[in-house]
Amino acid sequence: MTKTVLIGAGNLAFHFYKRLTNCNEVKVIQWYSRSLQKIDFAKKQTEVIDQFSQIKSADLYLICVSDDAIRSMCKKINTTNLVVHCAGGVSIDQLEDTPRKGVFYPLQTFSKDQDLSFDQLPFCIETTDPKDQILLSNLAKAMGGIPHKINSETRTQMHIIAVLINNFGNHLLHLGSKLLKEHDISFKIFHPLIEETYQKALKSGPENTQTGPAIRDDQKTIEKHLGLISDENIKKLYLNLTSSIQRNHEK
Amino acid sequence: MTKTVLIGAGNLAFHFYKRLTNCNEVKVIQWYSRSLQKIDFAKKQTEVIDQFSQIKSADLYLICVSDDAIRSMCKKINTTNLVVHCAGGVSIDQLEDTPRKGVFYPLQTFSKDQDLSFDQLPFCIETTDPKDQILLSNLAKAMGGIPHKINSETRTQMHIIAVLINNFGNHLLHLGSKLLKEHDISFKIFHPLIEETYQKALKSGPENTQTGPAIRDDQKTIEKHLGLISDENIKKLYLNLTSSIQRNHEK
Repeated sequence: MTKTVLIGAGNLAFHFYKRLTNCNEVKVIQWYSRSLQKIDFAKKQTEVIDQFSQIKSADLYLICVSDDAIRSMCKKINTTNLVVHCAGGVSIDQLEDTPRKGVFYPLQTFSKDQDLSFDQLPFCIETTDPKDQILLSNLAKAMGGIPHKINSETRTQMHIIAVLINNFGNHLLHLGSKLLKEHDISFKIFHPLIEETYQKALKSGPENTQTGPAIRDDQKTIEKHLGLISDENIKKLYLNLTSSIQRNHEK
Repeated sequence: MTKTVLIGAGNLAFHFYKRLTNCNEVKVIQWYSRSLQKIDFAKKQTEVIDQFSQIKSADLYLICVSDDAIRSMCKKINTTNLVVHCAGGVSIDQLEDTPRKGVFYPLQTFSKDQDLSFDQLPFCIETTDPKDQILLSNLAKAMGGIPHKINSETRTQMHIIAVLINNFGNHLLHLGSKLLKEHDISFKIFHPLIEETYQKALKSGPENTQTGPAIRDDQKTIEKHLGLISDENIKKLYLNLTSSIQRNHEK
């Protein structure tokens, strides 16, 4: 059983806590947060602390804090055991002054108030010691996920791609729902189109599922749309994305 | 039973043909295409034609051709019965020289080789005669869909929003998969993130599910990413979408 100290109280830490306390292979022996209040609800099940001096010896220290705080958190943990961060865009080298380092990055978007399945979830794992690769791979599997050995450089590229796909994809939906509100149309009417869009891309590959005026080079429709979009920001995005589609589908 | 002539042999026409021939309330009495070859497979079940002179009298003429061809197709149908086009971005007025006009626009993306459910599919319906509104609403319901009364102006706005959501959303997935290939990472590892992105936005509203460096104003990560993106086109999109997120989430 992997004795684990969980550090942080953000979205990811909450989902990890919930999942890890239901894993037979793991025992969360402590949960640290600067704000005890945030994790107070867990105190019946787990020792909650807000002082680093109280930290116990554990097999694994799981740092789930914002990117900028990872380095300083790591410096405060005085251990020769495994210290791991969970950030997509942060190099393993940021875990200074600790001999056994690792990264345990779940390729997913987490919100505190949304239930999330860890089933088949990909974990990008990197360690300085090959033995720890096995430890973290087993942890990923125990949580229901799938481990992948990925180094810091590749993980950073994956983080960029996650921004394109998740952050920017969500923003397009947001702009769409904003325009719908302006025209008093319910977002719900677009649900089947949204479902079909990504299901089709997952099934057939997005390079094969592009449709619309840009790929058809339907200049008349493109100009009509540009004339009707009053928001200059959306107009600029429409133009950029249209020419990007055309550039990427040149014959 | 609505006697129907189907006109066109694109993606939409194929899906309509397949669905309509399974509707008890509808009888496709003819299918017209410039290219008989494309619709030849249907000739055992339906009369297939490539000459307008052969067109029979029907209750409904369903024009499923490219936007630019709608007007000329309509002119060739000599009828006082209902003539309908199925395009999101084309005004009902393009159906000239025919007394009973209508629009029957399914808010969905169609590919010929992908099965698609019409269950709960929204249909945007517009007619010049209120009685025809009822006829087309019943047709939408018979196909398993949900009719919505939407005028040409609103439908054009919905078409713009469909481009944002579907065409541009798919393109972001395409750019992501292109970068993944360059780094020799499988697109499949991103499937759970893509599913979660869209499911979460549908459940909670995309205005509430934005995450990532842009909304956190995490300038360090944004600059790191920009430094690592070598494709100038993707870099430009990254910058524009980042500033669009920030503008839309200003407190």
